[in-house]
Amino acid sequence: MIKVGIIGATGYAGGELVRILTGHKEAEIKWFGSRSYIDQKYASVYQNMFQIVDATCMDDNMEKLASQVDVIFTATPQGLCASLVNENILSKVKIIDLSADFRIKDVATYEKWYGIEHKSPQFIEEAVYGLCEINREDVKNARLVANPGCYTTCSILTAYPLAKEGIIDMSTLIIDAKSGTSGAGRSAKVANLFCEVNENMKAYGVATHRHTPEIEEQLGYASGEKVVLNFTPHLVPMNRGILATEYAKLTKDVTYDEVKAIYDKYYANEKFIRVLEKDVCPETKWVEGSNYVDINFKIDPRTNRIIMMGAIDNLVKGAAGQAVQNMNLMFGLKESEGLELVPMFP
Amino acid sequence: MIKVGIIGATGYAGGELVRILTGHKEAEIKWFGSRSYIDQKYASVYQNMFQIVDATCMDDNMEKLASQVDVIFTATPQGLCASLVNENILSKVKIIDLSADFRIKDVATYEKWYGIEHKSPQFIEEAVYGLCEINREDVKNARLVANPGCYTTCSILTAYPLAKEGIIDMSTLIIDAKSGTSGAGRSAKVANLFCEVNENMKAYGVATHRHTPEIEEQLGYASGEKVVLNFTPHLVPMNRGILATEYAKLTKDVTYDEVKAIYDKYYANEKFIRVLEKDVCPETKWVEGSNYVDINFKIDPRTNRIIMMGAIDNLVKGAAGQAVQNMNLMFGLKESEGLELVPMFP
Amino acid sequence: MIKVGIIGATGYAGGELVRILTGHKEAEIKWFGSRSYIDQKYASVYQNMFQIVDATCMDDNMEKLASQVDVIFTATPQGLCASLVNENILSKVKIIDLSADFRIKDVATYEKWYGIEHKSPQFIEEAVYGLCEINREDVKNARLVANPGCYTTCSILTAYPLAKEGIIDMSTLIIDAKSGTSGAGRSAKVANLFCEVNENMKAYGVATHRHTPEIEEQLGYASGEKVVLNFTPHLVPMNRGILATEYAKLTKDVTYDEVKAIYDKYYANEKFIRVLEKDVCPETKWVEGSNYVDINFKIDPRTNRIIMMGAIDNLVKGAAGQAVQNMNLMFGLKESEGLELVPMFP
Amino acid sequence: MIKVGIIGATGYAGGELVRILTGHKEAEIKWFGSRSYIDQKYASVYQNMFQIVDATCMDDNMEKLASQVDVIFTATPQGLCASLVNENILSKVKIIDLSADFRIKDVATYEKWYGIEHKSPQFIEEAVYGLCEINREDVKNARLVANPGCYTTCSILTAYPLAKEGIIDMSTLIIDAKSGTSGAGRSAKVANLFCEVNENMKAYGVATHRHTPEIEEQLGYASGEKVVLNFTPHLVPMNRGILATEYAKLTKDVTYDEVKAIYDKYYANEKFIRVLEKDVCPETKWVEGSNYVDINFKIDPRTNRIIMMGAIDNLVKGAAGQAVQNMNLMFGLKESEGLELVPMFP
Repeated sequence: MIKVGIIGATGYAGGELVRILTGHKEAEIKWFGSRSYIDQKYASVYQNMFQIVDATCMDDNMEKLASQVDVIFTATPQGLCASLVNENILSKVKIIDLSADFRIKDVATYEKWYGIEHKSPQFIEEAVYGLCEINREDVKNARLVANPGCYTTCSILTAYPLAKEGIIDMSTLIIDAKSGTSGAGRSAKVANLFCEVNENMKAYGVATHRHTPEIEEQLGYASGEKVVLNFTPHLVPMNRGILATEYAKLTKDVTYDEVKAIYDKYYANEKFIRVLEKDVCPETKWVEGSNYVDINFKIDPRTNRIIMMGAIDNLVKGAAGQAVQNMNLMFGLKESEGLELVPMFP
Repeated sequence: MIKVGIIGATGYAGGELVRILTGHKEAEIKWFGSRSYIDQKYASVYQNMFQIVDATCMDDNMEKLASQVDVIFTATPQGLCASLVNENILSKVKIIDLSADFRIKDVATYEKWYGIEHKSPQFIEEAVYGLCEINREDVKNARLVANPGCYTTCSILTAYPLAKEGIIDMSTLIIDAKSGTSGAGRSAKVANLFCEVNENMKAYGVATHRHTPEIEEQLGYASGEKVVLNFTPHLVPMNRGILATEYAKLTKDVTYDEVKAIYDKYYANEKFIRVLEKDVCPETKWVEGSNYVDINFKIDPRTNRIIMMGAIDNLVKGAAGQAVQNMNLMFGLKESEGLELVPMFP
Repeated sequence: MIKVGIIGATGYAGGELVRILTGHKEAEIKWFGSRSYIDQKYASVYQNMFQIVDATCMDDNMEKLASQVDVIFTATPQGLCASLVNENILSKVKIIDLSADFRIKDVATYEKWYGIEHKSPQFIEEAVYGLCEINREDVKNARLVANPGCYTTCSILTAYPLAKEGIIDMSTLIIDAKSGTSGAGRSAKVANLFCEVNENMKAYGVATHRHTPEIEEQLGYASGEKVVLNFTPHLVPMNRGILATEYAKLTKDVTYDEVKAIYDKYYANEKFIRVLEKDVCPETKWVEGSNYVDINFKIDPRTNRIIMMGAIDNLVKGAAGQAVQNMNLMFGLKESEGLELVPMFP
Repeated sequence: MIKVGIIGATGYAGGELVRILTGHKEAEIKWFGSRSYIDQKYASVYQNMFQIVDATCMDDNMEKLASQVDVIFTATPQGLCASLVNENILSKVKIIDLSADFRIKDVATYEKWYGIEHKSPQFIEEAVYGLCEINREDVKNARLVANPGCYTTCSILTAYPLAKEGIIDMSTLIIDAKSGTSGAGRSAKVANLFCEVNENMKAYGVATHRHTPEIEEQLGYASGEKVVLNFTPHLVPMNRGILATEYAKLTKDVTYDEVKAIYDKYYANEKFIRVLEKDVCPETKWVEGSNYVDINFKIDPRTNRIIMMGAIDNLVKGAAGQAVQNMNLMFGLKESEGLELVPMFP
């Protein structure tokens, strides 16, 4: 039984880790870290866990925690994990960081887009970018995994096979993404109040959103060239779900079947990636509560562009689910253990 | 492995049966009956099931089905199950009827409230009312289970211990219930369009809703007296969830602790019923996707009334979850098999 | 042209006052008071007002304001108006208080339910309870109007004619009310975040909500007896709207037509009260954005109870709209000036 | 007083025409045409109009209607207006068609994208495309106005000044649009049920949506070149609102101020177009219920693209509001008469 500690267990991603790990046969949460709710019953913060989780929230002392568990999930604001981690800790425990601290290899890029100093750049090189379907082998041997962002998971996986195979012109790639509001976290802000979000939709972080360099870096590895793209996130009045609509020029004449074959080449054996049938557009509701990524595409011969679409549950494949998938890989468990969650509809 | 047939597999309750049974270790769906979608892939109707369910929808021939499965769930409009069932079928297969056909013992009452003739009154006596926590032993031996209604499950369980122990005046009982829109089913009606339901709330079926006699009958058994009450359902702009707020005069002076002890007497060992901590009001979101019933109460000394509150997911404990719980009991399985669904939040 | 000052112009009720008064032909807002946003453009707080309102937010100095305007609306937290008002101010300007400070005649009741000391009890007697349809003549001559609460407006108007005519047993009256989330105000609280409210429903303030004594007092005046009742508010995932479902025993045999005649006696000439046609249940959406109260009822001969239902927009008839209606009365304007708002659907 | 007839008065756009015209000082609805609800009270279909509209629904006989009114609005499915209109009718009455029948000048393009034969191609040339801000003078003299589509109004106005001034490369233009569900109309379809739309988001009509050629044609006129672009609509869980996010390469180096000046050149004097302050992104809620178009843009020097954003209420500026604006122009009334609707928030 793998012993798990969570730092940031009372945010939405932390709560989802608890939900998923509660059904995991090989792991047990030993530490529900939450700076805001120390000494309060976890189930008093998330009443859905009443009579399921009996634990009390604890502090976020990573040193102490490292002696007591096998793996630590940090579901915390940017900068916290980088400020806590050290060689001593990493020698004792594996870390899966759900923040952005170790996602970007170039420290200057991180510091520029996040506006904070990186406190442990020495571990960036070692950290493995935990997009399981792409970096599976590296994840297996990692001590420190940078769990991808929600938008980035969806955006990258949707375009990855086409970028890898060179059939899209990367300089023309535009990603227009839409997210449910849980992506904004559980902090009390006027902008996230029900009345402000309901019956409303907006773009935000236009041309400046922090997930941009992460997507660019990963699709750069895939395509073998430097990628600079437009990524525009939007806030949608729903709790969960990300939909990415991606546009790019095709580099050559391709048919539906040829593109489908490329997707299948990479994803046909991937349990959590479903390339939908022709002309079925992904819908966020069809993956809600699950670790699936639903993908499809449409070639537009009028413009010679391809429109790629991907949908995930931002809290599962976009955060906690993928983190558990990484844990499973790191500990040699069945990759889908705890993650065979059937999407809930309606 | 129990072989399962579902008639009405493409309604919302049918879809939820599929979702739940997909995770059930001792049961396997052999027949996805759907008159509207015969010969279509089930997953083309419910894309959430893509690559999970490979089956094709079939007709609703109960005779044929009875030879091929161990249990039939009928998630169909009122009257259909009663028109299909016969002794030959019941001799071969167990039936769990999610419609109202066998819930009410008095056929005249059924015919009056539902406005249709009952086609097999001869089986009403035999049918067991499948409210597991109350009729557990009878369910175990039943051939034909009448799965309770969604409102009724919530309404009855919320008041049951107090009715049974005689501490509320049944002639004063008023039930004000609120439901998400999935309770209205998946048929295409203007009144259930997104734009008609969103940002809206209304009562409906005031003083005439069909769940009224079902609640009255069951609470009548509990209290040992004839019960006539007011039940008012309301439509709420959410997909899932029922909240029942119930009011009654107390028959004697009782303290919080005394009432709590009564609830505990009946429910402390019930896995799926959670009596919340003092002053915590049930919220539908805390049980979403799960088989839980969350209950609490408040004594108002100013009016000498008690306000009881209960919350369920109408598609789980209010329909498919309870149906599976009944199946587990009927086949001697662990009662919670397939039902250890952790509520999803947010 | 009546000069208007608003203290608390950036809350939801304050924002609605601005929306309504922008279309008022005889009034002009001279002072947008907002402690939180002093010196910021009002339209930067409420972008809907961009290029409509050019003003800047100001402090909440009531003394200064009293010299510059004809009427002050206080859309502020409980206690603020009572702490600011004095004879000098009242001699110069009329005040319409949207808080609870002057709604309850018995200061001890106020202090008990609101948990704060009343700072100007000397004005309570003078203050007029501004439920226009009931206290119209008194409002016309008032210096200080206590604008009714949102739940209370809906709850009282729905039952008033029947209470007044003595056909319901007031000791049996139960009010189960449901409200959109704007009633919780614009303050940043976790409980009001989109993800906490969406797909969720709950009761709150059970047996303790502050609107209870206000309803009891007013229905007590109507019925001529002391009223003690149960009032239970619920939070619904919508922005606007209150629906009250009210239950009471009938004191005598009455027909639909007799009860309808009673409602018509009081409301047939009321522009903002619509008693719906037989069997049409009020829906909050049908009054959204307007000053209407939609009312209907159903007699249940089985239980000898009557179920009364009322719907309002909590920010209009439940707050800002009624406040403007009061202003119109106080200044001898056409009562509906600025309030002929057609409900928006969908 | 202008006499108005509406054919299709009980759809969502028709209902919005009624809401707006009810507050119009110079027009009066004489004919509420609704094939589905003939002889029923209009207010029984839209209860928000109870005691506001007393009329009964009538048939859709355009010949008869033409003798009785000054202007006919057709808020009907594609093809109906074209099949009814003739020279005799047009000699008697002005027509504002809210369907697509007369929007596209090339009949072959219309027939290809809409899949139906055009029944009166002889009037296409004469028909004026009623985008008031662009074709104001032509509208004034028109007998037949083709009221623009909802997506198209938003998409065109957002890009128009930049297309006109040649600072964007039209071959790179991509429009990613998001719409509330009222755009799908009031017909009873499973896909538009509350439970299917709520907590869900999807693209649809990818590379095939009918508004594409309309946008291309109008932006072609603006830019003076043939335009072929990608337009992708998405369905969002809200009642009202369209948000268009548009991407294009800049043809030259421009600063924020230079682009702002271009927008101001075209829109500074337009009452219904608000170019927001720097870095304020349009939100659909800020225009809800009003005739405004909110627009802003962001230059991304990293990609040399400009991101343009526009928001409208699809039922107002995207349908009924613009139709009334056209009527005002055609009859020489104040252009904003009946349309000074303040956006409702929240």
